[in-house]
Amino acid sequence: MKSGAALVRRFLGALAEGSADAPGVTRDAYGPGEQMAHDLARREALALGCEVRTDAAGNLMMTLAGPDRDAPCLLVGSHLDSVPHGGNYDGAAGVAAGLALIADLVGAGIQPAQDLVVVAFRAEEAAWFPVSYPGSEAMLGTLDPALLEVLHLRTGLTLAHHMGAAGFDPDAVRRGERQFDPTRIGAFVEVHIEQGPVLIGEGVPVGLVTAIAGGFRHTQARAVGAWAHSGATPRAYRQDAVLAVADMAAGLDAAWDAIEAAGRSATITIGVVATDPALHGGSRVAGEVAVCIDIRSEFGDVLDGVRRELLTLTAGIAERRGVAVDLGPEFTWEIAQMDAGLLTALEASAAAAGVATMRLPSGAGHDAAVLASAGVPTAMLFVRNAHGSHNPDEAMDPADLDQAVAVLMAYVMGSGGLA
Amino acid sequence: MKSGAALVRRFLGALAEGSADAPGVTRDAYGPGEQMAHDLARREALALGCEVRTDAAGNLMMTLAGPDRDAPCLLVGSHLDSVPHGGNYDGAAGVAAGLALIADLVGAGIQPAQDLVVVAFRAEEAAWFPVSYPGSEAMLGTLDPALLEVLHLRTGLTLAHHMGAAGFDPDAVRRGERQFDPTRIGAFVEVHIEQGPVLIGEGVPVGLVTAIAGGFRHTQARAVGAWAHSGATPRAYRQDAVLAVADMAAGLDAAWDAIEAAGRSATITIGVVATDPALHGGSRVAGEVAVCIDIRSEFGDVLDGVRRELLTLTAGIAERRGVAVDLGPEFTWEIAQMDAGLLTALEASAAAAGVATMRLPSGAGHDAAVLASAGVPTAMLFVRNAHGSHNPDEAMDPADLDQAVAVLMAYVMGSGGLA
Repeated sequence: MKSGAALVRRFLGALAEGSADAPGVTRDAYGPGEQMAHDLARREALALGCEVRTDAAGNLMMTLAGPDRDAPCLLVGSHLDSVPHGGNYDGAAGVAAGLALIADLVGAGIQPAQDLVVVAFRAEEAAWFPVSYPGSEAMLGTLDPALLEVLHLRTGLTLAHHMGAAGFDPDAVRRGERQFDPTRIGAFVEVHIEQGPVLIGEGVPVGLVTAIAGGFRHTQARAVGAWAHSGATPRAYRQDAVLAVADMAAGLDAAWDAIEAAGRSATITIGVVATDPALHGGSRVAGEVAVCIDIRSEFGDVLDGVRRELLTLTAGIAERRGVAVDLGPEFTWEIAQMDAGLLTALEASAAAAGVATMRLPSGAGHDAAVLASAGVPTAMLFVRNAHGSHNPDEAMDPADLDQAVAVLMAYVMGSGGLA
Repeated sequence: MKSGAALVRRFLGALAEGSADAPGVTRDAYGPGEQMAHDLARREALALGCEVRTDAAGNLMMTLAGPDRDAPCLLVGSHLDSVPHGGNYDGAAGVAAGLALIADLVGAGIQPAQDLVVVAFRAEEAAWFPVSYPGSEAMLGTLDPALLEVLHLRTGLTLAHHMGAAGFDPDAVRRGERQFDPTRIGAFVEVHIEQGPVLIGEGVPVGLVTAIAGGFRHTQARAVGAWAHSGATPRAYRQDAVLAVADMAAGLDAAWDAIEAAGRSATITIGVVATDPALHGGSRVAGEVAVCIDIRSEFGDVLDGVRRELLTLTAGIAERRGVAVDLGPEFTWEIAQMDAGLLTALEASAAAAGVATMRLPSGAGHDAAVLASAGVPTAMLFVRNAHGSHNPDEAMDPADLDQAVAVLMAYVMGSGGLA
């Protein structure tokens, strides 16, 4: 077995053991679970002869030095925290891939022309602090200082507190001090398990991400009609909030049909529906239903179209059903395009390595979006994985992760990165 | 003001004051709230010269004696309990109407040819004991003895316990002893506020109920698909339980269209929709939704048709969405036809009294269904009422109740019931 493949199995095995919290694993951001994972990665990197440093936010950088220390580096990595009782691979697979790449280079006696830096970001999972990507943003000095004051969802203490208690420097983060100059990053590649079923369905081990979808979400939408007695209220007198939500769901499903018929893509989800248990009952027409609506696409015009369609549907439902749909606040996040040149180069590298790939968008967000937004040429490799993520049933085959490492190796070799 | 109209206002005012429990009123079955109401009714009846007795289940019978004590009586009444924080009129208006009829007869010096019995039933609201109509069933000796062991929803003690503690005789009820021989009831008329908006909408003060709808209910139905990441799971891979419920709602709405287009009637309600708060979220496709489905009609073949349609819809959803709809247990209740001759007589009486009426079904259940099932010629008069029932906003105009009393008076006079 190659050095990298051995490292992957050793590292992921030790991680699973060290963070076991049945069912699944728990690696809490800025807590002992995440720290255990960082310590494990550090030991592997030191054993491979890497320079290791930790930045003010606790992100871990492990560098296999190239001959020209001034050339822009290749950055590879992901995060090491997990959701509570999550799976072992979400995040950690990407750090394992970076370390395996170094192990294979060192094992083959190859020095890359430029620094190869493996990064383990902090606190990517919003299950701990209700904020996205504070680790990678702090690394680039772009974290909004106000977000240091968000409260841990369990302890109720601030992100700044936990960052300091873990031994890092929230004041430097607050001042926006850059921990890593993005102009010194030639490219960033994040390897991550696919959180959906596409690669399994298509029988392809590695995916090339075209873009990280943007989107918008209405978490506090409500359909408001009128509570009534189910037996005593004929149809003409009803303002049925459940039927209003059914209309909304059907209308959005039809909009999705149209998007796909036009050869575009999106995901459209009503993932929460809830009548109030204190008010609903078997003999009542529901006067209010709370819903959460989540829309994502890699195409901005598609998002705009769905946004317009929501308003059209809302107006129609008010007229037809006498039910007011209050969408509430809209939370948005931007589309992050992956770098076209880097994508092409990785596709060629995969072909050279004999690894089957396909292009697909990422509907879920990742630290890669932060790097891309900062102007760093960025790409992501997805690794085939069953049963989604954020649950103990994540089932990536390590042999598929080896394939992603092979793509990275071919890229390092092919992009002229040879001593 | 006539004696009856004065009694209505005095009695309902004292009830509201005596059972005030902001917001609204609380008259707990077999508790002090209901007992206070029975005591008030008893005092009014005694003041009018009635014979008063209480049966083994605590139902109160107040009799204005006719000259022929062996002739089948006219029974008028309803229940005096309310839901917690309910409205003042649901149930009590019917007892008030019966007492007002006696007051008007006594005030005019008229003795009816047959006994006129006003009844106040116990425990009609299922908000206290999870059982329908134990009071009227106990009166007729038809209460299933097992139901004496159901537990009070707040105290956790049995119905038998509460019946005994309130001073009545649960053992006699358990033995099925008839407290009132149904063959000695010539007719039963229950006056009750309408719990829906039809009479308000049509501008008619009094409704003549054609039938008490039967129906069936699935309180524990579930749509079971698969939980997935909303961004990472393309459409073809989804088994979205929310869309399955939307399909079910739309399909039932279309079935209701067809029923109405055929000139028939029903009510079809999905009144509860719920994803699990421990599992749902903004970035998840819902893998399970709990629903409650409530179907009612005065036509048995319409109910059977909806039952078949539910199965057709379920099969289609399984095939189209990959979502299994488990309807769970079906709870049914029978249609209770009102007596055609009595209905015609009351309609004629209303015309004679100059009271506008219309016919309509009752979608909600009432003690009248128990009497009708026992073979007693039974009818119901609905009184116009805003804002539904079971809430503090019930808004019957006492002048509309006076109209119902006028219909009863004309019926007593017209049916030969004069001394």
